Amino acid sequence: MGFSLIPKEEQFFDLFDKQAAVITTAAACFKELAAGAKFDDAGIERMKDIEHQCDEITHDIIDRLNRSFITPFDREDIYELAHELDDLVDMMFSVSKRMRLYKLEGNNPELVKFTELIGQSVRCLAKALGSLRHSKVHKPILVCCIEINRLENEGDHLRDQVIGDLFDKASDPIMVIKWKEIFEGVETCLDIAEDVSNIIESILVKNA
Amino acid sequence: MGFSLIPKEEQFFDLFDKQAAVITTAAACFKELAAGAKFDDAGIERMKDIEHQCDEITHDIIDRLNRSFITPFDREDIYELAHELDDLVDMMFSVSKRMRLYKLEGNNPELVKFTELIGQSVRCLAKALGSLRHSKVHKPILVCCIEINRLENEGDHLRDQVIGDLFDKASDPIMVIKWKEIFEGVETCLDIAEDVSNIIESILVKNA
Amino acid sequence: MGFSLIPKEEQFFDLFDKQAAVITTAAACFKELAAGAKFDDAGIERMKDIEHQCDEITHDIIDRLNRSFITPFDREDIYELAHELDDLVDMMFSVSKRMRLYKLEGNNPELVKFTELIGQSVRCLAKALGSLRHSKVHKPILVCCIEINRLENEGDHLRDQVIGDLFDKASDPIMVIKWKEIFEGVETCLDIAEDVSNIIESILVKNA
Repeated sequence: MGFSLIPKEEQFFDLFDKQAAVITTAAACFKELAAGAKFDDAGIERMKDIEHQCDEITHDIIDRLNRSFITPFDREDIYELAHELDDLVDMMFSVSKRMRLYKLEGNNPELVKFTELIGQSVRCLAKALGSLRHSKVHKPILVCCIEINRLENEGDHLRDQVIGDLFDKASDPIMVIKWKEIFEGVETCLDIAEDVSNIIESILVKNA
Repeated sequence: MGFSLIPKEEQFFDLFDKQAAVITTAAACFKELAAGAKFDDAGIERMKDIEHQCDEITHDIIDRLNRSFITPFDREDIYELAHELDDLVDMMFSVSKRMRLYKLEGNNPELVKFTELIGQSVRCLAKALGSLRHSKVHKPILVCCIEINRLENEGDHLRDQVIGDLFDKASDPIMVIKWKEIFEGVETCLDIAEDVSNIIESILVKNA
Repeated sequence: MGFSLIPKEEQFFDLFDKQAAVITTAAACFKELAAGAKFDDAGIERMKDIEHQCDEITHDIIDRLNRSFITPFDREDIYELAHELDDLVDMMFSVSKRMRLYKLEGNNPELVKFTELIGQSVRCLAKALGSLRHSKVHKPILVCCIEINRLENEGDHLRDQVIGDLFDKASDPIMVIKWKEIFEGVETCLDIAEDVSNIIESILVKNA
C-alpha cells in the first residue's frame, strides 16, 4: 500500500502529531515534579489534565479509525500506536499518583535521572511520529528508533542498579516496597516507548 | 457490515449471553465469600467450578469463531470480547485463591465494597452484551458503558484510599504485601470490565 | 487456506525450528544455573547470549512476515507465536538476572523443580512447533498441547504451595518480597508456554 495524500489520511498524521505534543508535555511535567520534589495535589492535578487531553486525542484516533475505509497504514498498527502512546502518559500519571500516595519525596537523583531518560525517549518518539508522513525516507526515523532502544537499555541498567542498592541497604521493608514499585514504573515508561518504536519500525518495513 | 439474522450468527449472541450469565454468577459468589468471611476450601471450590464453566464457553466461542466464515461483527472483536470476559472471571478466582493462601479474613469492609462495585459493573456488562443483538439501538448500550467507566473510576479512588491507609498505618510489612495485592487484584477486575466496555463501544461505532 | 509447499512458506517453519532450538537451550541453561546455584556473572552472560540469539530469530520472523504476501498460516498467528516465544526466553533471562541482583542462592529445591517443569514444557513446545509443517496430522500436536497445559497446572499448584509456605514461615519480609517475585516469574514461564500452545491449537482449528 502506498502513501497517498488524501486529506482524510493526513488527519491521522495530524492527530499523531497532537498526541506526540501531549506526551512531550507530560514528560516535561513529570520531570519537573521529580526534580522539584513536587508530587503534591497541584502537581498531580497538572498531570491529570494532560492525561485527560491524551485520552481525548486517543479517542479521536480510534473513532476516526473505526469510521475510515482508507488509512495511511495498517489499521491494526494505527490502533496499537494510539493505545501505546496513551499507555505511556497513563504510566507517567500513575507513577506520579503513587509518589504522592506513598508520601515519597521527589528530588531522588535516580528518579530525576529516569525522568530525563523518559524525556529524551519521548523527544525521539515525537520526531519519529512526525516523520511518518514522509515514511519513504527511512533513515531519520530509524535513527530515532535506535536511540529509543538505547535509552531503554540504559533504563534497564539503572533500574537494576537502583533496586539492587535498595535491597542491599534495606532496613525498612516498607520503603523497599514503595521505591521498588516507583522504579519499576518509570522503567516501564521506557519499555512502552520501545514498544511504540517497534510498531513504527514495522510500519516502515510494510511500506518499504 | 450489517447485522443479518442468519442463525449461525445468532449462536454467537447466545454464547455471549451464556458467558454473561456465568460472570454474573461469579460476581455474586465472590461478593458472598467476601461478605461472609468464607474464603475457605468450599468457597474456593465453588469459584473454581464457575471459572471452569466460563473456560468452556470461551473455548466454544473461539472454536466457533475459528470455524466460521461469517460473524456478526469483527472477528478480532469477538475474540477479544471472549478473552477479556474470561480474564474477568479468572481474576475473581485468582483473588479468592490468594485470600485463602494468605489466610486473610473476608469481612473487610473495603473488600466487600469492591465486590459490590464488581457486581454492579458485571450487571451493566451483562445488559450491554445482551443488547448487542440489537446493536443498531445504541443508547441503552452506551448508558451501560458509561456506568462501567464510572464504576472503574470509583474503584480507582477506593484502591488509592485503601492502599494509602495500608501504608500509613503499616506496622507489619507482611500484611501490607498481602492486602496490597488483594486490593490491586479487585481493582483489576473493574479495569477488565472497562476493557470489555471499550470493545463493545468500538463494535457499535464500526456497525453504525 | 491450505498448506502449500512453496519454499517461501517453508522458511517460516525453518525459523520456528530455529526459535524452538534456542528456547530449548535457554531452558537447559536456566535449569543448570538453578541446580548448580550458579546465578553468577558468567551464568547471566550465557543466558544473555541465548536471549540475544532469540531476539535475532524473532526479528527475522517479523521482518519476513512484513515482507511476505503468502504465509503458511494466519499472519496474526505467526506474529503472536514469534513474540510469545521471545517472551518466554526473556522471562527466563529476567528471572536469572533477578536471582543475581537479589543475591539469592540457587539450589532451592522448588526453584530446581520449576526449571524442570519449564524444561519439560519447552520440550513439548519444540515438538509441537516442529510438527506444524505437517499440521494436517493433528494428533501428535494436540498431545503436546495437553501436556503443556498439564504442566502449567502443576506449576500453579507448586507456586501456591511455595508462596503459602513463604508467608507462613515469614520472618524476614525482604526475603518474602524477593522469593515471591522469583516464583511468580518462573510460573509465568509456564503461562507463556501455555499461551503458545493455545495459539498452536487455534492454528490447527483454522487449517482443519
